[in-house]
Parts: sequence; structure tokens; C-alpha cells
Amino acid sequence: MSTLKVYSDLLMSQAALEELKAGIAPHELVLPLKPALSVLSKSEPGPAFKTVDIAFGQPDISSIYEAKNLKWVQVSSAGFTRYDTDEFRAYAKENGVKLSNSSSVYMEPCAEHVVSFMLCQSRKLMEAVKLRVANGTEEWNAMRSRSNLLQGQKVVILGFGTIAERVVEMLAPFKMEIVAMRRKARGDEGVRVVDEAGLPAELANADHVINILPENDASIGFFDAARFAQLKKGSVFYNIGRGSTVNQEALYETLNSGHLEAAWLDVTSPEPLPDDHPLWTLSNCYITPHTAGGHAHEDLSLVRHFLRNFKRHLAGEALNDSVIA
Amino acid sequence: MSTLKVYSDLLMSQAALEELKAGIAPHELVLPLKPALSVLSKSEPGPAFKTVDIAFGQPDISSIYEAKNLKWVQVSSAGFTRYDTDEFRAYAKENGVKLSNSSSVYMEPCAEHVVSFMLCQSRKLMEAVKLRVANGTEEWNAMRSRSNLLQGQKVVILGFGTIAERVVEMLAPFKMEIVAMRRKARGDEGVRVVDEAGLPAELANADHVINILPENDASIGFFDAARFAQLKKGSVFYNIGRGSTVNQEALYETLNSGHLEAAWLDVTSPEPLPDDHPLWTLSNCYITPHTAGGHAHEDLSLVRHFLRNFKRHLAGEALNDSVIA
Repeated sequence: MSTLKVYSDLLMSQAALEELKAGIAPHELVLPLKPALSVLSKSEPGPAFKTVDIAFGQPDISSIYEAKNLKWVQVSSAGFTRYDTDEFRAYAKENGVKLSNSSSVYMEPCAEHVVSFMLCQSRKLMEAVKLRVANGTEEWNAMRSRSNLLQGQKVVILGFGTIAERVVEMLAPFKMEIVAMRRKARGDEGVRVVDEAGLPAELANADHVINILPENDASIGFFDAARFAQLKKGSVFYNIGRGSTVNQEALYETLNSGHLEAAWLDVTSPEPLPDDHPLWTLSNCYITPHTAGGHAHEDLSLVRHFLRNFKRHLAGEALNDSVIA
Repeated sequence: MSTLKVYSDLLMSQAALEELKAGIAPHELVLPLKPALSVLSKSEPGPAFKTVDIAFGQPDISSIYEAKNLKWVQVSSAGFTRYDTDEFRAYAKENGVKLSNSSSVYMEPCAEHVVSFMLCQSRKLMEAVKLRVANGTEEWNAMRSRSNLLQGQKVVILGFGTIAERVVEMLAPFKMEIVAMRRKARGDEGVRVVDEAGLPAELANADHVINILPENDASIGFFDAARFAQLKKGSVFYNIGRGSTVNQEALYETLNSGHLEAAWLDVTSPEPLPDDHPLWTLSNCYITPHTAGGHAHEDLSLVRHFLRNFKRHLAGEALNDSVIA
């Protein structure tokens, strides 16, 4: 096989860069003119991009269309909205371009993050660490009786991909009732699955609602005022998918009225919210700044995931986290 | 069988009281002159206590010695320090008094509480909810890479009773290395067990150290300066046992020096700590006010646990959560 050119605009430590170089050798690594600053930002690919065979990171669609040798793009995020268009899918099919993502890299941290949200809310940690009360006082009894158990509660998960599967595994010891919403049940989910039509009946008695919907035409603004009204009074809403799937004004009203006990968001629209956004004023809205996928040595995890797929690509095997095969 | 007198000084809602009365009928419920204000405080039993057959709550040792018909005491807490003396054990044996506790009622909330501590620390939630940063900034990358995974980390648990067993179940999906310290391994722990002599080698590379030691002569001040020095730099310490098992000055020094990443305490000595206590000044010391065992309808849980044992007592069966049989 001739030497392949592998482009990567991933923001990497020197260690990750060396591991990537060594892992693809004797094939050639092509770096961008200006590297990306985050897994969600864009780089400037430079003229060499036109000649590459493989791209790993967040390459522009327009650059991809100009790279006539390109056969495989692995995006360095779980989300792949910018590539998820009919136009791109048609181009990819016609030109034999495969697309894979890095969802398995983010599965573990995202799943741990949302379970941490659930337990932190359930045990009222944010309030409890501020409370200096003596055993036996009225405030103490009130805090103790407001500290809930996940055990026996009900959770509805929207968007049933790799993260949701991992969340289900993590919640298993808590013996919760778990229901997933998915457009088409595959039958191997291991939990009860409903479609959108079946959702309101499930939301009506769920204690926890986890939104992991990806961004697409059907999901934008999915959680609007009518949807939030379907949630049980006192339930808790979590979003670790995309901010655009939530109507934030409706969320504000639902939280401010006390209909929801709390919301925990790792994603908003935009990120971060402007300083004068009303969601910041609520004591029952907790926002982490899109850190759910973060973990030590994230760049190395991404590089290793790419290198595993690189071997599969060379061997002509199906890619892990394949989006367009 | 003649009518038994069942004393209870449990702080109860009307619903729990009714359930207790109905559950023991036709036997007679005897209430204290002045009820207890918390599961850890004391009531005034009153003269009728001398005539009771069964006591459920937190009866005084001195009152117990005067109650010549008393055959069974069920304490309404998991801890039973005040009854855990050679003198009381000798009295109980001589007079055929059984002692049981309510540890199984507190197993679930305490286990969920400490796992919530672990995940909250691991995902850096306390800091992340205060951080308004844009994707791709240096602060953002720093927070993402400081957000850890429990997966693959090591935890040492001291005090291997029902709570620890439940914690082990809850941590199973995270695929951690779990080691327990126990004076005598029983062989059915399901995790590796070491004794006190084997502890330092385990602490030296543990990421998390969970203290669930009960209070007794051997455990008071167990975590002193020398012990904390055995912990790995950057590890996290949790205490949901008893405050007296920790030398708080030594804990302060260990946290202040940065040797520990953080401590999460549900118990201190005293509770709450005085307002001028140095532990309050540390940003890496999180204290919840002895709420780990709290949950909605705690009184009903305690009553139902008692009623299950009441049936066993009448049938002459071994009690659940038996302490002195």
C-alpha cells in the first residue's frame, strides 16, 4: 500500500501527538495551519488538506468536498451535526467517504456525569453542604426527609445511544424503573422503550428525565412549554445532549414556577449563557460548562480510539462508532 | 400469649404512629413522657418504662436496667455505641435481653450518599457549577481534564458492614478496584479484604478512602496524622461513619497542605462543628450535616423494620440486624 496522508486538527499534547505519529507510521501525518482550540471549534486546514486520505478531528465540510482522495473522516466529538445533512450523506455515498465519530470516548465520562447530577440532586448535596444545623432541629429533619433515594424511582431517558446504554448499566444497582424514548425500538435495549407518542404517559410519573437527544430537525426545541407541562410536578430534568433541544424560556418558567424540583444542564444555547440570562438567577438550575465529556488525557483517549479504527480501516473492517459506512 | 407492652420513643408522624399501633395490636404501645427530637437524642421514658417488654427507639441504659420484663431492645439508628459496652453485654446476656439495630434502614440512603460524594467530587460538580467559561478556553480545558472517571480507580473501604456491602454493589458498574479493611475477613465479602496491618500498602495507591468505621475503643482517632500521611497524594477522603474516628486537626493539615484533593464528611465531632472551626475555611472540605441516612418517610421505614422484627420476635425467630442475640 502506498503511503497515506492522515490529517488531524485535534488539539493535542505533545505526548498524544507522538502517539498518533507513531501509531500511523509509516503513513504521514498532516497538521493544520492553525489548530482547533476545542473539540467543538474549527481549525484552518490549509492547502495540504486537499491531498489527504484520512481526516481526524473537525474538518470543514467545504474542505472535505475539495479533498478528492479523502475516504474516511473520524470526528473527534460524539456529536456530528455539521455532517448530518442529506447533502453530505449523498456526497459521502457517491464518493465512498466513511464517517465515524468518537462517541465511545465520551460514553464513560458523560454517563458518570449525568449519574453524578442525579445523585447530587437526590441527596441535596448543593444545599446540604451549606447547612450548619444540629441533629434533631426542624431544619435538620426537613433536610433529611428531602434527601431522596434513587432506589425505586422512575427515570425516562431520551436519546438511546451509547451514553444511555452506559447510564442504564450504572443505574442497575439502584433498582429504578427505566424507560427509554427511541424512534424505533431495536429490541435489545434491555429497558422498556417507547416512541414519541408514548412519551407523555411516561413523563407524567417519572422522577427523573434525562435528555441526551442529538441535535437535528426533529429535536430542536423538543423540550418546549407543552413538553415540560407533561413532566410530573417535583421531577428533575437533566440535559447532557445539546442545548438547542430545549426551549430555555420554557425551562425557566417551569423551574421558576416550582413545577420542576430542579434542572441540571451540561449544555445550553449559547455556551456559556450570557451573564444576564434568567436561568442564572434560579437556585434550582445547576449548569456545568459542557464538561460532561471531560476526563484526564482526553486527547490520548481520542488518539487511541482513532488508532484502533485506523487499523480497522487499513484491514477493510467495519469501523467502531460508524456513522456513515 | 399475654398482652405485651411495647415502648417506643421514636419521633414519628401520625401516620407512622398509627402503623406502629396497628402493627403490634393487640399488644399495647407505651409512649414516653417527652419524645426524642432526633434519632440520636434522648427521650424521657417515664415511670411506665419499668413495666415494658420491648423497647424501640433510643432508651437509656439506666432505664433498661430498671425494666425487669424487658426482653428486646431495637435501637432506631445504625450506631449503637451507648449499648456497646462490656457491662451492657453482660447485663443483656444474664437477663436474656436481645439487642437489634436499624442498620438496614440506613443502608440504602448512606450508600447512595457516599456514592453521590464520590461522583460529585470526581466530576468536580461543586466547582463546575460556578464556572461560566466558553468551550475551548484554557479554564475550560483545565476543568475538563480535572473531571475524573471513577472507572478504573481504586477505593479502600474501612468498616465492612451492610452499608459497605451496598456501596460495593453500587460501584460494580464503574469497574473500580475495591479493597475493604476488616478485622477478620469472613470470606464472603466479594472484594479483597485486608486487616489493619495490610492497610498502609492499600492506602498508598488508593484514589478514594471511605471511612464507615463505627465508634469504639479501637476506632477513636483512627485517622490521625500518621494515617493520613499513608494516603496517596491527591486522593479523596470520605467519612459517613462517626466523627470521633477522625483527628480533625490532622485532617485539616492534610487538606490544607494539598496532600488530599478533598474530604467529604457527613459526620464530625461535634455536630455541627463550631463556626470558628478551621475545617469550615477550606474550599476542599465538604460537610453535610449528618444527613446521609435521611430519606422521605424515614419514620415509616423504621416502624416497618421494627414490625418485621416484632413478628420474628413473637415467632421466636432470629432478628434482622441483630447485635446481641
